[in-house]
Amino acid sequence: MAINEKRTITKQSLDFPAWYQDVVREAELAEGSEVRGCGIVRPYGLKIWELIKAELSRQFEEDDIENVYFPIFVPLENLEAEKEHVEGFSPELAIVTHAGGEELTNKLAIRPTSEAAMYKTYAKWIQSYKDLPLRLNQWANVVRWEKRPRAFLRWSEFLWQEGHTVFENEEEARVEVQKMLDVYKATYEFMAIPTYTGRKSESEKFAGAVMTKTVEVMARDGKAIQGATSHYLGTNFAKVFDVKYLGADGEFHFGHQNSWGLSWRSVGALIMVHGDDNGLRLPPNVAPIQVIIVPIYKDETAKEVLDYCDTIKNSLKDKYRVKVDTRENQTPGFKFNHWEVRGVPVRLEIGPKEAAEKKLTVFRRDNGIKELVALADLEKRLAELMKEIHANLYQQALDFSKQNIHRIESWDEIGEQSGWFEASWCEDADTEKLLKEKYGMVSRVLLPDSEQSAPKNKKCFISGREAKHDWLFAKSY
Amino acid sequence: MAINEKRTITKQSLDFPAWYQDVVREAELAEGSEVRGCGIVRPYGLKIWELIKAELSRQFEEDDIENVYFPIFVPLENLEAEKEHVEGFSPELAIVTHAGGEELTNKLAIRPTSEAAMYKTYAKWIQSYKDLPLRLNQWANVVRWEKRPRAFLRWSEFLWQEGHTVFENEEEARVEVQKMLDVYKATYEFMAIPTYTGRKSESEKFAGAVMTKTVEVMARDGKAIQGATSHYLGTNFAKVFDVKYLGADGEFHFGHQNSWGLSWRSVGALIMVHGDDNGLRLPPNVAPIQVIIVPIYKDETAKEVLDYCDTIKNSLKDKYRVKVDTRENQTPGFKFNHWEVRGVPVRLEIGPKEAAEKKLTVFRRDNGIKELVALADLEKRLAELMKEIHANLYQQALDFSKQNIHRIESWDEIGEQSGWFEASWCEDADTEKLLKEKYGMVSRVLLPDSEQSAPKNKKCFISGREAKHDWLFAKSY
Repeated sequence: MAINEKRTITKQSLDFPAWYQDVVREAELAEGSEVRGCGIVRPYGLKIWELIKAELSRQFEEDDIENVYFPIFVPLENLEAEKEHVEGFSPELAIVTHAGGEELTNKLAIRPTSEAAMYKTYAKWIQSYKDLPLRLNQWANVVRWEKRPRAFLRWSEFLWQEGHTVFENEEEARVEVQKMLDVYKATYEFMAIPTYTGRKSESEKFAGAVMTKTVEVMARDGKAIQGATSHYLGTNFAKVFDVKYLGADGEFHFGHQNSWGLSWRSVGALIMVHGDDNGLRLPPNVAPIQVIIVPIYKDETAKEVLDYCDTIKNSLKDKYRVKVDTRENQTPGFKFNHWEVRGVPVRLEIGPKEAAEKKLTVFRRDNGIKELVALADLEKRLAELMKEIHANLYQQALDFSKQNIHRIESWDEIGEQSGWFEASWCEDADTEKLLKEKYGMVSRVLLPDSEQSAPKNKKCFISGREAKHDWLFAKSY
Repeated sequence: MAINEKRTITKQSLDFPAWYQDVVREAELAEGSEVRGCGIVRPYGLKIWELIKAELSRQFEEDDIENVYFPIFVPLENLEAEKEHVEGFSPELAIVTHAGGEELTNKLAIRPTSEAAMYKTYAKWIQSYKDLPLRLNQWANVVRWEKRPRAFLRWSEFLWQEGHTVFENEEEARVEVQKMLDVYKATYEFMAIPTYTGRKSESEKFAGAVMTKTVEVMARDGKAIQGATSHYLGTNFAKVFDVKYLGADGEFHFGHQNSWGLSWRSVGALIMVHGDDNGLRLPPNVAPIQVIIVPIYKDETAKEVLDYCDTIKNSLKDKYRVKVDTRENQTPGFKFNHWEVRGVPVRLEIGPKEAAEKKLTVFRRDNGIKELVALADLEKRLAELMKEIHANLYQQALDFSKQNIHRIESWDEIGEQSGWFEASWCEDADTEKLLKEKYGMVSRVLLPDSEQSAPKNKKCFISGREAKHDWLFAKSY
């Protein structure tokens, strides 16, 4: 089968970022806009995000997390109230200076995240321990001005959800950090993406947090993608915004807070984890079209074939997102390529022979294998296939990531190698800075197993000082 | 039953706008924020919007309308390209002048609506008639700076959907205007709200449109609320943004466009149409909680009653949004009031007698009637009740609106009367301006029946000139 003959998609091995750009364009997922750094998400790309969002919403709802909506504008003085927070975000802010035909006395930032927008109001809502825990989520757009934009992964405006909670004490809040991390891990597994989850280093944590946990994903070029984060904010913001409650002990206490977020970066991760030289490969759970039916006919067999396709479509449409490609002016080969680029998991090829014999040819996008299936067996076989495709994509990604994590004892071993590096580290910020300068990489995550054990090497792989734990290091998007 | 004894809610008859504010606050739907003109929508209020949104999404999906997401920022020069459009919106714009630590060379407006953000890109997507019709929808936040904000109805930032379509010719585009108007009408009927739909006058149409159709709703103080609009844009924007296609005739033609939108104003309309002196009254379709169970017990009967409540909740939870109010430190009377203010359609009151006899007391929020129902009949009775409550709320609103539309022959008859006024009108803009100055009202809608018939009076009710049609006039929110 001659696939992608026009080679509109760069090979991954030649130039991975170019491949990514090509797939985003050719699969009609998104494109740049007139506003530098901002993107336009097209229906096919947005539908993927909506499917991720629906799964995450389902998990939130099951856990009694309610949604809220705060204004997009944050008074600058609120943002400036938490020192580390504003230092982290001020270089990326977009500022509204004029509105309603007048210059504003108090300038407004467009939210880069909503801690500073929400917590003054949280303080009003919370009186006593009976009002806790407060666990709210917001689906919203946020703006962080990007100097080097990249589709989905780094746009100046992006869609995400941000959860903001208040608990009575540190213990409860820390349990929640892990709970939401597990929700995110499950959401990536829903996308057939294996993740590496754990703690961030002091210099890589969220600006204003006491501790950040992260979901890290490996792209097919060996770089890391931060897929979602879950922060323990301690009482840092509570003290600034006066989020306190009257405890059962009759005393006032500051609330212990969390925030946690997952954005449409997840769509970027999905592309970079599963895509191949022919374009997207989508796991069924997040495929806007799960089954594409391509009729193959000549004028004299058109009616018979198209009727058969319609019958099959109707028999599947309650269970699957299914579509018949009825375009008259395109060849079957063009259509095959069209839907392969878009990563549709299953293609049904149906010609007059198939129609006459009540059979069909089933093509799997994940491994390119074709099989002939009797119409009577289709429902059963499709149900199996959807599971097999999901499992295969997950296993491929898992195997790839395992093969590309290299244990090193000294940073000299990095050399020109791609992938992630596991190394025993002293955790001093100066060494992370050196690593960034020399290799363009930083620490990504401290896995729980590594956190609970002594480092494999007593000496730090950079400084030679005493190592604390084994961390993962990588270049990232 | 002593309801709302504290009188935290102003009576509608005393001061309707104060009543509205009180309900929004007491039902915990929303509140003001630190950013003037912007509101915070709390979980109970946002859930109502999400239920409306889900119904509208369902209708869009059924009609193969796909979602898209464009940047929140619009280059000012794009907005300025369509003369009437910019004149209509420029007084309400919020402007970003600084981003990423630098002053922007090209200032950005925050979208007040997205015609000027989308259509340059539409021009790229459309090549030939085969790409048409293009029918896309966007769920987004938009900003129109408000000098006189009002919760849900007029906030500087609001959530909405905006549809933007391109057709080959005027006829198709005009059919679509009505089609989307019918979708909006059905969405209001889903909320048990009767609507008056038809054409807007020249001065009240959308800035940049050839023609606007509107969904008008009557609040319980007799004012009008514009519930949604559907515009025929002609080729006005297409000419500015070069939205053209190669026709089957081998010639290039400009596309005929529509835009149409419904916002969370609909939540404001819902409150103002159904609410009464005790607070909200919600139709079951958009009630965040459809059935509230209030246990009534003493210490010795607590377990028996609470177990019975749980059993009932579990038997209902697959069909209804149901909750048991288990708060220990509140009286049943407090709880009754709490959920009445929030408009929960059905309350189940359950005490030890009910638990022992396998019965329960069912209270309807819409008409205040109580009945005793045997547990065995509950499922059947609840299904009936949900329909009855919806129908009753709809009928009450319809009767109210009919009683409050007054036929007048001269504008002097308006006097101090509230309600809407049907009158034969010359349709000249100068008369509408006079009416606004004298009575604070403008034309709301020309109903289809009136559009197709001669005016009842040959003379205009304001100018005495030749009348063209019978229009509806009202003050509005």
